[in-house]
Amino acid sequence: MATQRILDFLATRRPNGPCLVVDLDVVRDNFRAFEKALPDSRIYYAVKANPAPEILRLLAAMGSSFDTASVAEVEMAMDAGAPADRISFGNTIKKERDIARAYQLGIRLYAVDCVEEVEKIARAAPGSRVFCRVLTDGEGAEWPLSRKFGCVPAMAVDVLRHAKALGLDAYGVSFHVGSQQTDLTAWDRALGDAKKVFATLAEEGIVLKMVNMGGGFPTRYLKDVPAAQAYGRAIFSALRKHFGNALPETIIEPGRGMVGNAGVIKSEVVLISKKADNDNVRWVFLDIGKFGGLAETMDEAIRYPIVTRHDGSETAPCVLAGPTCDSADVLYEKTPYPLPLSLTIGDEVLIEGTGAYTTTYSAVAFNGFEPLRSYVI
Amino acid sequence: MATQRILDFLATRRPNGPCLVVDLDVVRDNFRAFEKALPDSRIYYAVKANPAPEILRLLAAMGSSFDTASVAEVEMAMDAGAPADRISFGNTIKKERDIARAYQLGIRLYAVDCVEEVEKIARAAPGSRVFCRVLTDGEGAEWPLSRKFGCVPAMAVDVLRHAKALGLDAYGVSFHVGSQQTDLTAWDRALGDAKKVFATLAEEGIVLKMVNMGGGFPTRYLKDVPAAQAYGRAIFSALRKHFGNALPETIIEPGRGMVGNAGVIKSEVVLISKKADNDNVRWVFLDIGKFGGLAETMDEAIRYPIVTRHDGSETAPCVLAGPTCDSADVLYEKTPYPLPLSLTIGDEVLIEGTGAYTTTYSAVAFNGFEPLRSYVI
Repeated sequence: MATQRILDFLATRRPNGPCLVVDLDVVRDNFRAFEKALPDSRIYYAVKANPAPEILRLLAAMGSSFDTASVAEVEMAMDAGAPADRISFGNTIKKERDIARAYQLGIRLYAVDCVEEVEKIARAAPGSRVFCRVLTDGEGAEWPLSRKFGCVPAMAVDVLRHAKALGLDAYGVSFHVGSQQTDLTAWDRALGDAKKVFATLAEEGIVLKMVNMGGGFPTRYLKDVPAAQAYGRAIFSALRKHFGNALPETIIEPGRGMVGNAGVIKSEVVLISKKADNDNVRWVFLDIGKFGGLAETMDEAIRYPIVTRHDGSETAPCVLAGPTCDSADVLYEKTPYPLPLSLTIGDEVLIEGTGAYTTTYSAVAFNGFEPLRSYVI
Repeated sequence: MATQRILDFLATRRPNGPCLVVDLDVVRDNFRAFEKALPDSRIYYAVKANPAPEILRLLAAMGSSFDTASVAEVEMAMDAGAPADRISFGNTIKKERDIARAYQLGIRLYAVDCVEEVEKIARAAPGSRVFCRVLTDGEGAEWPLSRKFGCVPAMAVDVLRHAKALGLDAYGVSFHVGSQQTDLTAWDRALGDAKKVFATLAEEGIVLKMVNMGGGFPTRYLKDVPAAQAYGRAIFSALRKHFGNALPETIIEPGRGMVGNAGVIKSEVVLISKKADNDNVRWVFLDIGKFGGLAETMDEAIRYPIVTRHDGSETAPCVLAGPTCDSADVLYEKTPYPLPLSLTIGDEVLIEGTGAYTTTYSAVAFNGFEPLRSYVI
């Protein structure tokens, strides 16, 4: 996944310290793959995955819409050239004064998952479109979501009814099947729930128009176009099954799927050591860890591919850890990571698939280490 | 723990958004309590706990030494007025060029836990003092340490012997009993291990001089001076027991113990909702979460006291969560947090005991939210 452009950049520029390099060509390909796989859906890029201005400008120019989590992200998307009608304020947790500010900026599409949030929007963004997030079971996802966002479908009916009563446009339903979802039936179940909300409200004369299918598209399928299209077909047939000929507008919100495989982190081996002479596991310490951008290694959830100049030679299991004085700054320990025996202190390593959720997760200055630098090429 | 000075500051200044307020008077009291409890130990404040310049300047003026984790922290301590001979480069994981830079700045005291690190120091900081960290079992600590730092005592002997052979000053041994350690026998066991390293090397004519007892002092004992002194007495008698009349120099490295109870985070309730009509647990969303500074709620390890204007009225269990679109941004869920039923959206809450490990853990801009602001008064 380290493209030739990334390798050339690193070889030529030789940046000091850990850094992320993102190849815009890969982002461009990913956007086109999503367009091709789901030609009838509008793509709202999840800005939180990587808000680098170069990425936002490219996607804005390609016609992408944007899913934002805060007023700052709304402003970033607008600065990148996205008009307000291509921006969704997708966070279900918003201060009323932030809603007012987004409304002032022209934003007319808001996520909700409870009556209390509807009331804020009715006051601060009158007449806007709202969609209500419903809880899904998250089965089959590599990173199942907690119950933090969404409400049960029966409550979504109340929420959208209340929105209508307060003069808002009860626009649709959203769900998120969980990150890196590989079980295609997850979309089928969630779309079935969405349809029930549509049907119940239709009986009261409230006609919903949109289903926001969120993110969760597994990165690895993007490289494999037939598989991406198989995803698209499965989702389309679930839509057909539940909605028949009255297909709603659909939105997708890829984040990791759009930029994850476009980025590579360059790091350096700071130390290789053992804790006792007879230990058979070496400790390898990198100059980046959990607090420098690799927060998603939490509970060893995401296992990034690591490339070294010794690949192909004999390997042995290592505990991989970051450079801070924090004992929690360990990346892989429960399942040690096989690395070449010939790896030495000072070697560069490439951590692949790190284009999403790295720069923004980086701590401000933990242990005095500066935040992860990023180059978008 | 919200002192009158902090309450007055918040009432007068009314800062917008979440922020940390640190009362320097409490830091001053904590420093004096440590001096009193362990009069024969030198205090090295762990800069990583909170590197605010005002805190470093106060402690430098009071005569504190500083435990640093990076060149940036060395520079911060020096900028605050600490001379180089009061600074320890306490991270066992250092790039050789960072050691060289610290040496250039005058730093002559370094932590190691393996032969490989000793070799870097011999090359980049010739003649310096090194102390070797030994592993402890961490039993009895609220936040037990992983095996990330230190080596077994037998290996520490090799490491220090190697240091001596390379012309370094084999200066001593360090350990860390784990954060918030309440079991006084933990120090006794660790000091016993340290003594063995001293004794083995003495037989070879290598005379160690110092024991670095690290941090781990529980915050809550500081308010209670007799208890702090009981701690001091227990440690002193363990020193006596193992070292007899040949007491070594000792160092302590309080971080959380120095600043934890000096800080309060002011936050705002953004949303209170349920996921279903029949849920008996409410979700309370604050404008600060795991990525805005409260990273230590990871696995619900640290449970901060939360103060509201409704305290004393009837409470009910709540799931407490942060404001980002990240499903992992939940503070307390496995053990719900009791909060007043009359708590409402827009209410201010005070999160106490947050002076340590908050500002620096804060993410750069996750979801577009700015890092935790801090006021030191």
